[in-house]
Amino acid sequence: MGGREFVHEGRVRYVETDAMGVAHHSAYLVWMEEARIAALRDLGRSYRELEASGIMMPVVECGIRFKRSLRFDDLFRLRTTMELPSPSRICFRSRFLDVGEALLAEGEVTVAVLDAGGRPRRLPDDLLKVLRSASEAGK
Amino acid sequence: MGGREFVHEGRVRYVETDAMGVAHHSAYLVWMEEARIAALRDLGRSYRELEASGIMMPVVECGIRFKRSLRFDDLFRLRTTMELPSPSRICFRSRFLDVGEALLAEGEVTVAVLDAGGRPRRLPDDLLKVLRSASEAGK
Amino acid sequence: MGGREFVHEGRVRYVETDAMGVAHHSAYLVWMEEARIAALRDLGRSYRELEASGIMMPVVECGIRFKRSLRFDDLFRLRTTMELPSPSRICFRSRFLDVGEALLAEGEVTVAVLDAGGRPRRLPDDLLKVLRSASEAGK
Amino acid sequence: MGGREFVHEGRVRYVETDAMGVAHHSAYLVWMEEARIAALRDLGRSYRELEASGIMMPVVECGIRFKRSLRFDDLFRLRTTMELPSPSRICFRSRFLDVGEALLAEGEVTVAVLDAGGRPRRLPDDLLKVLRSASEAGK
Repeated sequence: MGGREFVHEGRVRYVETDAMGVAHHSAYLVWMEEARIAALRDLGRSYRELEASGIMMPVVECGIRFKRSLRFDDLFRLRTTMELPSPSRICFRSRFLDVGEALLAEGEVTVAVLDAGGRPRRLPDDLLKVLRSASEAGK
Repeated sequence: MGGREFVHEGRVRYVETDAMGVAHHSAYLVWMEEARIAALRDLGRSYRELEASGIMMPVVECGIRFKRSLRFDDLFRLRTTMELPSPSRICFRSRFLDVGEALLAEGEVTVAVLDAGGRPRRLPDDLLKVLRSASEAGK
Repeated sequence: MGGREFVHEGRVRYVETDAMGVAHHSAYLVWMEEARIAALRDLGRSYRELEASGIMMPVVECGIRFKRSLRFDDLFRLRTTMELPSPSRICFRSRFLDVGEALLAEGEVTVAVLDAGGRPRRLPDDLLKVLRSASEAGK
Repeated sequence: MGGREFVHEGRVRYVETDAMGVAHHSAYLVWMEEARIAALRDLGRSYRELEASGIMMPVVECGIRFKRSLRFDDLFRLRTTMELPSPSRICFRSRFLDVGEALLAEGEVTVAVLDAGGRPRRLPDDLLKVLRSASEAGK
């Protein structure tokens, strides 16, 4: 049950910490962006080539719940799954875990699929097929 | 009806843009952070002094819905209200507007109130009073 | 003696601090970028419109010497002058000062002037004239 | 001749790009920071543990010359060497190379060694020995 889970690992950079001594909350959005670009790469797709072909995927919605903070140099793991609420929208759900798999945070980011002119468009059929197969909808 | 509305203005910096030519979605969290620190300042309180007195306010939850993008050098305005779901938690709700007051995005950030050791604590009574009076709960 | 001095003020944002409790050194490059865009605005020019007209100004060289650190919420002032080493290059020299005008840091950023295709080009004559008049070369 | 060369690899993240479509110049300082923390790790030292033991290494000087730009998703390699101008100062020199070893940028960052109170101090003897052995001075 459930779709494919993509695993992405990272380490808190010094610049990502703040005066509270922990990773700033905005860094989690950046890590989720890295994780979804890596997930596309795991599926044999390059987000860079998608953009070059005139497909943009701006974030239209995001949300994060923070449970435990991360400090400089901490390793963490994102476990991400995808859903396709429509043929022109992808939702990525991520859990942030520490090296012992304890939950640090959970979040979702939904991207829209736009053409180069900024108008909504369907995902190309082949990509749609690949994403459906990886998504929860494909379970 | 409703609590006090705090107004904070900004301008998209070049570093905040990305290869899509628009402000990166993580910048909105930073702008909301600026807005809530400015709101405290408007209430005569300094977040810096709060931290110096041993009160930390880490973000425990955030969410944003994006409607229209911002480009480099665009001016924008945040209209922010507060709620106090408990004496150790503050929720800031912001609307992002362009110069013509068209809605660009909406979001919420909830902060917890912790002591220097990272344990939840009540807001100091005088600050609680000031925030309640400014909050939706104070309507 | 010397050219026009442009003054730009800022305040250290929370996200710009790091675990050492001070503003991260990379933030100074961002503040210098804000200051030079503001300097162009003071001269009646919009960097955004320059880009829209096909003129790019990427940074080709930068350097900073740090004297004293800045903390969250600290106000600071940049005093910036310009030099034109050539008709396709502008050098901005900035001093970072605290509210008492004590020196915090000093730095330079040199930008190249490129066309939309990434080839070096001369500044447009009218802009060159304005910058020369403001620059040290104009003394 | 010459000291040990530390190699660190990275990939341009989307958030690090700007509206010009290339990596923002401030990202290079962040990559150099990652590279020097990784270099210490390669030497069996943790910058996190150094800080925990009361040793701070703020940047006191930095400079970068940019030759060719990097785009989103580009891989790059930093080749970094160290110098010890004094027992309380370390200079890191980095060359940024693309996958074909073409030079993209060159830069230096000098850090001071401070105690927890912000006063200059010598590096601990064992670390000084390790760094001297890795540095150009050790040639």
